[in-house]
Parts: sequence; structure tokens; C-alpha cells
Amino acid sequence: MDYKSLPTPTSCYADFCLIPIGTPTPSVAKEVASVQALIKDSGIKHTMHSAGTTLEGSWDEVFKLIGQAHSLVHQSGILRVQTSLRVGSRTDKKQTAEEKVKRVEDILAGEKA
Amino acid sequence: MDYKSLPTPTSCYADFCLIPIGTPTPSVAKEVASVQALIKDSGIKHTMHSAGTTLEGSWDEVFKLIGQAHSLVHQSGILRVQTSLRVGSRTDKKQTAEEKVKRVEDILAGEKA
Amino acid sequence: MDYKSLPTPTSCYADFCLIPIGTPTPSVAKEVASVQALIKDSGIKHTMHSAGTTLEGSWDEVFKLIGQAHSLVHQSGILRVQTSLRVGSRTDKKQTAEEKVKRVEDILAGEKA
Amino acid sequence: MDYKSLPTPTSCYADFCLIPIGTPTPSVAKEVASVQALIKDSGIKHTMHSAGTTLEGSWDEVFKLIGQAHSLVHQSGILRVQTSLRVGSRTDKKQTAEEKVKRVEDILAGEKA
Repeated sequence: MDYKSLPTPTSCYADFCLIPIGTPTPSVAKEVASVQALIKDSGIKHTMHSAGTTLEGSWDEVFKLIGQAHSLVHQSGILRVQTSLRVGSRTDKKQTAEEKVKRVEDILAGEKA
Repeated sequence: MDYKSLPTPTSCYADFCLIPIGTPTPSVAKEVASVQALIKDSGIKHTMHSAGTTLEGSWDEVFKLIGQAHSLVHQSGILRVQTSLRVGSRTDKKQTAEEKVKRVEDILAGEKA
Repeated sequence: MDYKSLPTPTSCYADFCLIPIGTPTPSVAKEVASVQALIKDSGIKHTMHSAGTTLEGSWDEVFKLIGQAHSLVHQSGILRVQTSLRVGSRTDKKQTAEEKVKRVEDILAGEKA
Repeated sequence: MDYKSLPTPTSCYADFCLIPIGTPTPSVAKEVASVQALIKDSGIKHTMHSAGTTLEGSWDEVFKLIGQAHSLVHQSGILRVQTSLRVGSRTDKKQTAEEKVKRVEDILAGEKA
């Protein structure tokens, strides 16, 4: 098997929550806001929610951005950063974040009909 | 140390994504919709997003509900279920999902001012 | 549907990594060690590895223990705690942590045979 | 702020659990074994445990490998793949997986002394 030539997925979604470790207070809002500014600048499709941010794009651009988020927080003086993340890829169809939510809502609405 | 009398947190948020394993097709919308119906019935504060659902409540009620979600999907014929999850608790203050998002947005808005 | 009477799974595994937020230094070893002492005292089957700890038991006892771990770290003065976690349940068979690893190793060994 | 030139971390650990979605049976051992063969071939430092695999290396090589793991499983006919993952980076010191475990064990042993 020629593993070396295996590509990374052309599209995926990654939902991540970045935690700075070793902060003077329990608030992480400042670091989260700085990461949001980085994400906005990147142009990658993103949705922030209360427990993380969902990115949609190619595997390489999504994980480069999350790596840059770690470096950005490190550069602000935080020595350790941990991210919890779930990532999905599929080859049968393209599905946006909005379509995923609508699909479930339609099923629920259908059951009430 | 008297470990046995340690309580579980009176409040937490848990953001989870439940995956049925061994489904005939790659779609999980039907199972996700059934879990959403369970959550709505529970009365626990919840926010669905494209990559999971965020629950807010006491530790015990939140994790009982996610356990029931596993059992519900098992009862529909799915032999194996895996959930990825991030849970947070804090004792310095109560913060709702909406307040967490607003806090970050205010910092970003402040930086643009 | 009678959701209220849904049980939680009688067995599951949960692999978790607990992060204290708002610590004076980036080291979390002291908090992790205190959680390990709690886990040892609980009698629940557990395996520590470099990126977390895997618990095996009933859903209720496993998640009570992780909740107690949050409370234990809070009692040591940490105002905020976040855990990243993956949990699996299956109804087709019981499979210990050791059997899961052996199953994969046997397949790999078979491919080399 | 020049976001574009931000590097990704030169070292990190990533603990991941890959789940194929839409498999005929609840067993994922075959897919997990194929990913283990890819990892062995990569030369990246890795530790398999019952709930996932921990990789140690640069951010770019670690996330390229996990992306290739998704593609490998897709090429075996699985249309959808989801990975749950926790990744950590630190700039204060280098710490291997073994050193992290030993540090906690030393603290526990110290408490028994």
C-alpha cells in the first residue's frame, strides 16, 4: 500500500473548543475572542456557538487555522493550550452546517405533522 | 480523604455529539432527530447546532439524559453508540450559553470601537 | 413514547481528560494525580494513559465519578474545570479495554502472517 | 496583526479516536487496524490504547496523518468518517507521553511515601 500518496480530505467540518492552560483567572474570553478575530480574517466558513466554533473547509486549511490559533494564544503568553475537537468528512455528498440542522428539524417537523 | 461523600457539580454545560455505529447508510439524521425529541421532552435547557447539542443543567440530570439518549438509540436497533463530549463546570459564577457568546462578541466589538 | 422510564446503559467505557482552568502554572500534574487517587479509591476499572484515563463500568457510576473529579478539583481551589471525553456503549457484546486492543493487534498480526 | 504568517506549533500531541459511519456491523476493528498500519508506516511516534491512539510530532505532520487516515477509510468504501480528538501544545518544555505518565505516578508515589 502506497501510504505516502494518500491525500487529506478535500472537505470536512471541525468543531473545536480551545482552552488556554495557566491563565491568571478562570476567564478564557480574551483568548477566545483573539481566536475569533484570527478565524474571521482567514475567510474560512465558521459558526461560533457557546461551546466552540465549527469550521467548514478543506482538511488542510481547517487544521492549519486551528494550529495557528494555538500559536496565536502561545504568542499572547500562554505556555500551554489544549483543544478538544470533533471532525467529520464524507464522500457521498456535500452538506453544510445549515443543511445538517435543517435535515434534523425537517424530520422532527414531519413527526409532528 | 472522604471521597465517597464528594458531590457532583450542581451546574454544568455539556456539548455532545452522538454517533450510531453499524447503520445501513451514512446518514445519522433519524437517530439525531430521535435524541432531539428526547431532549425536548426532558425540559433541560438545550441548544442544537450543526456539530452537536449543548445541554445546561445539573451534572446528574445532564448525564442521565445523555445516557438515556444512548439507550433510546440502542432500542431503535443500533448495537453500538459513541458520543464525543466536552463538559465544563465553574464555581465562580453562573454563565448561560448566551452570556458566553455575548461576552466574546462584546470583546470583539470593543476592539473594533 | 415514555422517555422518563428510559434506563441509562448498564455498561460503557469513558475516556476522559480533565483540565483545570485558571491555574498559576501550565502544569496540571497535581490535579491529575488527585483525580487518579479518587479513581483508585472508587474501585472502578481504569487505565491511565498519557492523554487521559479510560473508565469501564455502568453509565451511572462512571459519570458520578467524573462529576466527583470535577468537585474534587474545585475543592482544591480551581474555579473552572473542563473535561473532554469520549464514551461508548454497545448491546451486542461485552468487550474489555484489553480485548479491544488485542482484537486490533490480532488483525494486524494476521495481515503479517 | 499579520495572521497569515502565524506558524503552526512545532510540536504537539494528539489523541484521536476514528469512527467509520455506515458500516454493516458494529465492529470497527478492521478500519482501526488499517489506520494502525498507516500510522506504523508513517514513522510518527504513537501509542495505541483501548480508546484511541496518541500521536506525538509537529502539528502539520500529525494532522496530515489523521487526514490521511480519513482518506484511507474512505477508500475502503466507508462514505462517512468522524474523529473525536484532543490536542495539546506547550512552549515551556518538551514532554513525552511517558514523561507525562511518570510525573503523575511520581506525585502519587510521593503521597504514599
